[in-house]
Amino acid sequence: MCAAAGELTINLAALRENYRTLDSITPSSCETACAVKANAYGLGMVKVSKVLHGVGAKSFFVATLQEGIALREVLPEAKIYVLNGFWAKEAAAYRHNRLIPVLNSLEDIGAAQGKGISCALHFDTGMNRLGLTQTETQKILKNKNLLDGLDIVLVMSHFSSSDEIDHPSLERQTKAFTEIRKHFPLVNASLCNSGGIFHSKGAHFDLTRPGLALYGGNPKPETQNPMQPVVQLNVPVLQIHQVKKGETAGYNETYRFHQNSTVAVVSAGYADGLFRTLSNRGVFYWKEHALPIRGRVSMDLVICDLKNVPAQDYPNPYDMIEVIGKNQSIDDLAKAARTIPYEIITSLGARYRRLYID
Amino acid sequence: MCAAAGELTINLAALRENYRTLDSITPSSCETACAVKANAYGLGMVKVSKVLHGVGAKSFFVATLQEGIALREVLPEAKIYVLNGFWAKEAAAYRHNRLIPVLNSLEDIGAAQGKGISCALHFDTGMNRLGLTQTETQKILKNKNLLDGLDIVLVMSHFSSSDEIDHPSLERQTKAFTEIRKHFPLVNASLCNSGGIFHSKGAHFDLTRPGLALYGGNPKPETQNPMQPVVQLNVPVLQIHQVKKGETAGYNETYRFHQNSTVAVVSAGYADGLFRTLSNRGVFYWKEHALPIRGRVSMDLVICDLKNVPAQDYPNPYDMIEVIGKNQSIDDLAKAARTIPYEIITSLGARYRRLYID
Repeated sequence: MCAAAGELTINLAALRENYRTLDSITPSSCETACAVKANAYGLGMVKVSKVLHGVGAKSFFVATLQEGIALREVLPEAKIYVLNGFWAKEAAAYRHNRLIPVLNSLEDIGAAQGKGISCALHFDTGMNRLGLTQTETQKILKNKNLLDGLDIVLVMSHFSSSDEIDHPSLERQTKAFTEIRKHFPLVNASLCNSGGIFHSKGAHFDLTRPGLALYGGNPKPETQNPMQPVVQLNVPVLQIHQVKKGETAGYNETYRFHQNSTVAVVSAGYADGLFRTLSNRGVFYWKEHALPIRGRVSMDLVICDLKNVPAQDYPNPYDMIEVIGKNQSIDDLAKAARTIPYEIITSLGARYRRLYID
Repeated sequence: MCAAAGELTINLAALRENYRTLDSITPSSCETACAVKANAYGLGMVKVSKVLHGVGAKSFFVATLQEGIALREVLPEAKIYVLNGFWAKEAAAYRHNRLIPVLNSLEDIGAAQGKGISCALHFDTGMNRLGLTQTETQKILKNKNLLDGLDIVLVMSHFSSSDEIDHPSLERQTKAFTEIRKHFPLVNASLCNSGGIFHSKGAHFDLTRPGLALYGGNPKPETQNPMQPVVQLNVPVLQIHQVKKGETAGYNETYRFHQNSTVAVVSAGYADGLFRTLSNRGVFYWKEHALPIRGRVSMDLVICDLKNVPAQDYPNPYDMIEVIGKNQSIDDLAKAARTIPYEIITSLGARYRRLYID
């Protein structure tokens, strides 16, 4: 049986190379950890983490306890940090699976004290998202016995705008974190995500935590992407047909053809993570030819225009059309969908056949 | 272990009631089939289909061969239609699983002839997406032996704008399909999706194919929703904290607080299908209080403002906040995210705990 389905190809050699590239930018004393939360940004946490562990990664960051437990099953030796707080009721699961909670508040700290688990402290230096607030931080720094009964193995913070070169918050947050860090001279410190590795002017501390850059996203959008592409996505054509001038395409008739046209209907839609924001904006590729999307992206189908393809080169039904590949990066597709590459890859759907190549 | 995770609740009693409501609108001679493609619009194809089968549904529509095979495993008796075309190489899988391909082109027809499988014919009457084109349709109607060797059990078409009351395409497509149907007097015919059941002025033919309305989406947006809500989504608060006037929230500092504020950080983000388009636009609910989203939705976290909540009613960490429920329908959330409820529910993430209640 040969089921016609979209194919999501994940290049493990490129993943390894990206890890080595990111690791080579920082001093050899600085460890490169890996953000593999959200199922390794949609690419498959188990497979991706094993490959990264094989190339030397020792520490991994996930968002939730469930993700941590799943990762522990396949990486018995790794250090696994769980970012999204700590609930007292979950202490036994953390201990049993040797997971390291990232403590984000005085409540988290209270819950973790005396539980016999290692932990990280997360100081908020400007995101106003998770993390110990400025007030909580001052309280702790003035009264370190608030931390009694904790085995702190990492102090960390998170950049709000590390994708923007020279954003003033980079320096502001680095300065604030450096001050905090002085109070924990014997504990490893971490500040940089993918963008921070390139844009923080050396605030690499002891451990970096890249995510998107590992998976081929551009961590420095102001220049050519230094990372290797990891993801390719191809989807099958179901049908090629003629459309007459004046006719419309898809739901609610949002595109009207200005001339007689030939379209290809492909088997993937927003249920597969091809966002509706690509409607009448995005393009796919056949060989090197751009195929503009016509009308609305629907749940399982997209209509695209063959106007740029010479008639003798038209694809046939079940030929594979490029969505992400040599002509279109995840960053390009994100731009067309008016979002960021992170949202693109974490949304790639469950119906694709996932092929890991090496 | 009590892992703090978002909870997606699917109300099976409401699902059954919606099926009965939709079935009661059409004449008793008209069968109500169910669109369960894309994993039953994200709610779980296996569970949802079994429940609908239990309440009398006999026919189901999926998009792909894989979905058809998975459904056959749990519903040995049902009629299962596969919408996205037919590939000659897949004939054995269709036959073995007694799946009914929907043929969308002369190529599909050629591939299916003499293969010993039942099939449906899909005529395009205005979508310009999948389906036999006007030219192909005329060819067939003039020369019916092009259909030799097919066991045709259904002829169908699909509305382009059935969610808009009185849209001119409703009458135009109904007329075109009625003409085609005259050539197949002994075969069942189907035109209506959810919107069409309410808006097509009785063009129900022999079989309807609702999808979204089964799952609680409003099939007639110009009035109050006649369907029962099926989906509830609640996500845990991780942290409550104070923010000072002038500070910003989240990535790239896209929201600045006009006053000292208290925010709740919740454990879900765009990797869970809470689209980034909700950034600075959407709201969640705590009890009956709206919590406006501040700053950008991030991968695993959202920051929301407690300004509408009296201080004595603040939630505590690990309390559950409403994303979809009695205060906010899937249609409301879709509007805030600038999309349609279909995209909202098909994107609900894999990290939620799915609870089926009855």
